Amino acid sequence: MAGADAQKGAYRYGRGREMTRDAARVETFSDGVFGVVLTVMAVELLQTGPARESGRELPDALAHAWPSYLAYLITFALAGQVWLAHHNLWRYIIRVDQMLLVLNLLVLLFIATIPFTADLLSDNLRGSATEQRLTAALYLGTVLGEALFVNLSWWWARRRGLLHPDMDPGLARAVARRILLKPLLYLVAFAVVFVDPILSLCAYLLLVAFYLIGGPGDLRPSANRAKGGSAA
Amino acid sequence: MAGADAQKGAYRYGRGREMTRDAARVETFSDGVFGVVLTVMAVELLQTGPARESGRELPDALAHAWPSYLAYLITFALAGQVWLAHHNLWRYIIRVDQMLLVLNLLVLLFIATIPFTADLLSDNLRGSATEQRLTAALYLGTVLGEALFVNLSWWWARRRGLLHPDMDPGLARAVARRILLKPLLYLVAFAVVFVDPILSLCAYLLLVAFYLIGGPGDLRPSANRAKGGSAA
Amino acid sequence: MAGADAQKGAYRYGRGREMTRDAARVETFSDGVFGVVLTVMAVELLQTGPARESGRELPDALAHAWPSYLAYLITFALAGQVWLAHHNLWRYIIRVDQMLLVLNLLVLLFIATIPFTADLLSDNLRGSATEQRLTAALYLGTVLGEALFVNLSWWWARRRGLLHPDMDPGLARAVARRILLKPLLYLVAFAVVFVDPILSLCAYLLLVAFYLIGGPGDLRPSANRAKGGSAA
Amino acid sequence: MAGADAQKGAYRYGRGREMTRDAARVETFSDGVFGVVLTVMAVELLQTGPARESGRELPDALAHAWPSYLAYLITFALAGQVWLAHHNLWRYIIRVDQMLLVLNLLVLLFIATIPFTADLLSDNLRGSATEQRLTAALYLGTVLGEALFVNLSWWWARRRGLLHPDMDPGLARAVARRILLKPLLYLVAFAVVFVDPILSLCAYLLLVAFYLIGGPGDLRPSANRAKGGSAA
Repeated sequence: MAGADAQKGAYRYGRGREMTRDAARVETFSDGVFGVVLTVMAVELLQTGPARESGRELPDALAHAWPSYLAYLITFALAGQVWLAHHNLWRYIIRVDQMLLVLNLLVLLFIATIPFTADLLSDNLRGSATEQRLTAALYLGTVLGEALFVNLSWWWARRRGLLHPDMDPGLARAVARRILLKPLLYLVAFAVVFVDPILSLCAYLLLVAFYLIGGPGDLRPSANRAKGGSAA
Repeated sequence: MAGADAQKGAYRYGRGREMTRDAARVETFSDGVFGVVLTVMAVELLQTGPARESGRELPDALAHAWPSYLAYLITFALAGQVWLAHHNLWRYIIRVDQMLLVLNLLVLLFIATIPFTADLLSDNLRGSATEQRLTAALYLGTVLGEALFVNLSWWWARRRGLLHPDMDPGLARAVARRILLKPLLYLVAFAVVFVDPILSLCAYLLLVAFYLIGGPGDLRPSANRAKGGSAA
Repeated sequence: MAGADAQKGAYRYGRGREMTRDAARVETFSDGVFGVVLTVMAVELLQTGPARESGRELPDALAHAWPSYLAYLITFALAGQVWLAHHNLWRYIIRVDQMLLVLNLLVLLFIATIPFTADLLSDNLRGSATEQRLTAALYLGTVLGEALFVNLSWWWARRRGLLHPDMDPGLARAVARRILLKPLLYLVAFAVVFVDPILSLCAYLLLVAFYLIGGPGDLRPSANRAKGGSAA
Repeated sequence: MAGADAQKGAYRYGRGREMTRDAARVETFSDGVFGVVLTVMAVELLQTGPARESGRELPDALAHAWPSYLAYLITFALAGQVWLAHHNLWRYIIRVDQMLLVLNLLVLLFIATIPFTADLLSDNLRGSATEQRLTAALYLGTVLGEALFVNLSWWWARRRGLLHPDMDPGLARAVARRILLKPLLYLVAFAVVFVDPILSLCAYLLLVAFYLIGGPGDLRPSANRAKGGSAA
């Protein structure tokens, strides 16, 4: 039965090696994009930062540039959290098809625009109400677009049997519910930026702490240890 | 027989590990270039974008920069589709030789110039007829140069026996025909940009949909599942 | 016993493959960030370098830009040494949990700001005493922040049993002491930059030499060879 | 014997997995740097290119920027060839120690400065004789520095027994002679740039062709196939 199950996903030339390599290559490629996005933000910080503003004392210039640092931190938290979620989901995906690759590319399309929207946000955080609302809407659009295609990726992987054959269907459903909820919470944390930027950062940190406690589909060796301990 | 077959490709010190690592390293390296190209477009968007244009209201500036967004989308579609094709072809390549590495480097040479040609295109989309024709020709040159060396890579890999030994020769031929056809279709979709940019984007999306339906050499676990199901 | 031990960390669907892939993916992702940071410094060198300073003879301009080169070298040494330490630590980590991933992201948060702080440092190395002290403090903050989360990562990995089960607990403790000491030595080497930049570079090179001699947790095949020789 | 031999390189916790991962991680990390360097050149082309030169017709501006394209092509050839050599050498290296990692970092230190030196070269190719000689000397310094540490890496790997145990010592010596010869040939090809840039490009292409024919240590499946065929 397990053998027949495994064979379902075998490629035409019938070896197991490619299955692993396929999913691993998607992760490597995605990690390249994530890595550049995380680092590019710091480069932008550098180029839009105080070092380029002339006619101002350095301590003043550094203090004056605080929205850049806030944008860097929030964006690092955003891209980092998306990477965490991507890492957690793709642990369970062992095969890929053309549609899943396209959905993953669309996730990356939105992730790659994070520097653009974050830079706009950082430039207009102290602008007029119209500018603030417009740039915030673009930022929200990026977050929601990314979340949409992450959810579609998982839905597609479940539907087409691309997950690990031993994965509990109940766990797969719980993960689906969780990744549906996550963008909503991040939106709430973001919305607070209009009230108080520092408060928004705290809300982000609270969410990170919340995800540390964990949920279905997250990495929980300690929970597994307890389980393994009872089995031993 | 299978043992003799496998030995043909073995390196002088006769182990199997290196064969896998060779092909995998080429993929990782290529993915690094793809990842930077995809992300660099977004950084360029940021630096040539509305945030830097002074003396204009933000909503106007954002709306005025629509050719940049179109260039970003089309280029993401182009680089993403090339990555998909690269991923699909290299699944079948299990060994490399010096010539294949050089052909792959030449593919990357053209891929790395996508930001340059796309930026020229985006800057001159509303320029004079000469500027439009010149930048479009450069863009076409990039696409065709990349397609030329992808086709040469596949031809070389087939000729030198670098493909998986169990791969059906008929499938290898079908893949060769398909990658010969693909650049032609993308050229047609691109040519429409002179008629109407929005129409061109739609043509691209149609092509993406077309490749989702799949063809020889693409990842089709569902088709394989049907096959595996009859075997079970 | 070994079987029960291995099972403790097994994921719900109980296979060994994912354990390796998890740790490997974290390394690949981190390496992407490291690679961009190392290269971005050279790009910055290019953009803040003499090629852009007009109205000055090239030999003069090149000689005048010496602080940029020093900053590039010291930062390459810093990021390279952090990569070495990351490489050495993660050889022993075979499983990950959510908290370890977050701690690793926080390490990367500080590593990605190295170009920013190094650029500030390089711009203000010949500035007023206030500018020198402020930029040096930022640089120190980056080094110490990175060291803090590297130490927390190792402490967490030891506490939650994420290390290789065969790793000697004494070695794990020795590694912990060593990574606690390392940032202190680098701070001393850095502090010398206020006395004499060239002397500071020499101190860095001495530290690199010191780490070449090796310590607990470093890669020492020759020592292992002696051990293996007695076993043979 | 083979068992005792393998054990020599085993780490303290005595498993085989880490040996592979160590060497693989160095390759992945180096590939990240190579990937960024290759792509960054194209981004620089974009930013120093004709798109930014105002007050000039586009066809003229594009034609006027020919040294940038030449610099891009020669640098891509240089970095690509270094990647090929790195790929070929590291196929044989299966273990790493601290010194080899440091030597590899020093190789990357010189590779990461290629964009800087190539940009200087491209800016001063039509400058005064002093400017030409100075920038060419910097470019040569990069090539020679990289070659020095590649040669030291191979010498160290041979001396410390980090190569594959089944590798023929005669082949290892032949590879050492070859990588000593290679930088000399590239220097000759480069020197021709002072006579005629087009001739220099042709000399590069001739060298690429020369390395396609192959030499000791290169990937030659066809030669292995003949050998395997006689063994079968």
